[in-house]
Amino acid sequence: MGTSGADSQGHASGLDAGRSVLVTGGAGFIGSHLVRLLLDEGSSVTVVDNLSTGRRDNLPPSHDRLRFIEADVTTGIDALADETFDEVIHLAAAVGVRLIVEQPIHTIETNVIETSTLLRFALTCGRDGTPANVLVASSSEVYGKSDRVPFREDDDVLYGPTTKSRWSYAHTKALDEHLALAHHQQNRLPVVVARLFNTVGPRQVGDYGMVVPSFVRRAMSGQPLLVYGDGEQARCFCDVRDVAPALLALTRTPSCHGRVFNVGSDRPITIRSLAERVIETLGSSSPIKTVPYDEAYAPGFEDLRLRQPDLSRIREAIGFAPTIPLDETIRGVRDAIAQREGAGA
Amino acid sequence: MGTSGADSQGHASGLDAGRSVLVTGGAGFIGSHLVRLLLDEGSSVTVVDNLSTGRRDNLPPSHDRLRFIEADVTTGIDALADETFDEVIHLAAAVGVRLIVEQPIHTIETNVIETSTLLRFALTCGRDGTPANVLVASSSEVYGKSDRVPFREDDDVLYGPTTKSRWSYAHTKALDEHLALAHHQQNRLPVVVARLFNTVGPRQVGDYGMVVPSFVRRAMSGQPLLVYGDGEQARCFCDVRDVAPALLALTRTPSCHGRVFNVGSDRPITIRSLAERVIETLGSSSPIKTVPYDEAYAPGFEDLRLRQPDLSRIREAIGFAPTIPLDETIRGVRDAIAQREGAGA
Repeated sequence: MGTSGADSQGHASGLDAGRSVLVTGGAGFIGSHLVRLLLDEGSSVTVVDNLSTGRRDNLPPSHDRLRFIEADVTTGIDALADETFDEVIHLAAAVGVRLIVEQPIHTIETNVIETSTLLRFALTCGRDGTPANVLVASSSEVYGKSDRVPFREDDDVLYGPTTKSRWSYAHTKALDEHLALAHHQQNRLPVVVARLFNTVGPRQVGDYGMVVPSFVRRAMSGQPLLVYGDGEQARCFCDVRDVAPALLALTRTPSCHGRVFNVGSDRPITIRSLAERVIETLGSSSPIKTVPYDEAYAPGFEDLRLRQPDLSRIREAIGFAPTIPLDETIRGVRDAIAQREGAGA
Repeated sequence: MGTSGADSQGHASGLDAGRSVLVTGGAGFIGSHLVRLLLDEGSSVTVVDNLSTGRRDNLPPSHDRLRFIEADVTTGIDALADETFDEVIHLAAAVGVRLIVEQPIHTIETNVIETSTLLRFALTCGRDGTPANVLVASSSEVYGKSDRVPFREDDDVLYGPTTKSRWSYAHTKALDEHLALAHHQQNRLPVVVARLFNTVGPRQVGDYGMVVPSFVRRAMSGQPLLVYGDGEQARCFCDVRDVAPALLALTRTPSCHGRVFNVGSDRPITIRSLAERVIETLGSSSPIKTVPYDEAYAPGFEDLRLRQPDLSRIREAIGFAPTIPLDETIRGVRDAIAQREGAGA
């Protein structure tokens, strides 16, 4: 995969291949990359995914070390009560700002209650009733609308009022982090929290407001690329093929347990520049069209101008640095869309 | 009771006496005052309280319109599944900063999961399967460490990082609010959120870090009053006999549903002045002793300098204004302590 995160896996763990790993949300975009890494290294993988946003065909159709359980986390864990896992990677969550605004009750209950259930399970699901190594995926949304960039893991966080449902997602992810860190402190659970920034790459879909696959799909068919607001809001996009091995390295490095890490790229690009880059990279004739926020989201929707992580901590801990350039990511997204549509045709 | 909140109850509801009311946390400090109000007006009251911080003897030992269920909210609601309530007052919560710092997992699970369960129950527990009127008690902690006083309900909120467990309480209360408001929006649940500031008065106990009963008890026995930090941090204390009728008025005023209200006093007093006032009012010979925060809480504990609500919204909605002076509250707390210790002797 080419990141130093991947290089450090074996050294950090001290385990031989043949690990048993539980991945919640394993049929999702990031999960599917992680599952393939695990299968490639020789681990046995159990995926629990309710396919609410994940897709079964993100994973190999059959594999002798892959088991797929179509269920939400709570139900899935009930079914696995007597089983043993060395590692638990918790990626399942209600994702995407649009979904959150439309279904706040579901989001809150899924994100908090399922994480609570999962962490309790992880306390004793290791060999001989020991705890498993755990990763809890969090989000840059935890920083809220703070404008003090780059974001450092110990920064204060600033949210809008509870009358705006958009902020419920940030609170759920912050509570997931609190739960994980509390289990580390109270119960010595070896758990790490990864605050994911904008992760992009093959198999991400645009249905939930994700900007890169939306742009690529529209550029492929000559439709206009829709840029919300003035397009000067900026994000840092990191390829999932850099992110997935870093998540494994964090899980397997004992000195990372009990801590929170930003994971992503620290190189910002404005959304307007991203649109231009997609058009240029793919040689598309699509125009760029500006859409006011109020037409895309509820009135008064608050977006961030710049969301940029400070990567000092993860760099120091596992030597992480993104390696895949944005153009390669854009082409990878295009190839995956073409392949899927070819397969579906 | 003397507040305009109490005066508006009958007018706002349009119901005759004989309401059936469920009060979670009804054996707690605020709950017990609310339950007495309800019994006095002729309502039938069901209290669900696990007595984790509440006390059975806060309530009348027996009353033909009072039923007491010793259980946590989820278990209690299971037992009440087929019953009908006109109103649901949700006060049950893990309370007090000290408890939260010591038991973050318990706090998060109690505050979020039980509120989630309760709101779903309230959707259909009214007459003929209609929703009940609901009040969800929240906390001024939701404002976090914002220094933009006085706090208005639509203000942004500022929290410390998730590595400090102290902030988990604020996130749980914010999520409770999000859940309540989402049920109003998605399911037309007639629910109001009350952000309680420092509520004080008879039957409050000092075991969980509550400052007024701690001071009163120590002043009564001549022990030193412990002031944390420099004592210049200020709070606004409101008597529970002003707060309880206001909570009922909010619950019963349809124009309040779907909204958040600050409830408390807007007159600040520093903790050092409070200590002096307690000593003076009770004619005590206790000295005042200053204690560094680090001896009282975990290192790096963050306290707020001033926590003061803007009361414009609740004043306009139900004509609320606190009426009971602090000296009367201090004497009331003393009398309740003396009475309880007399009864116990």
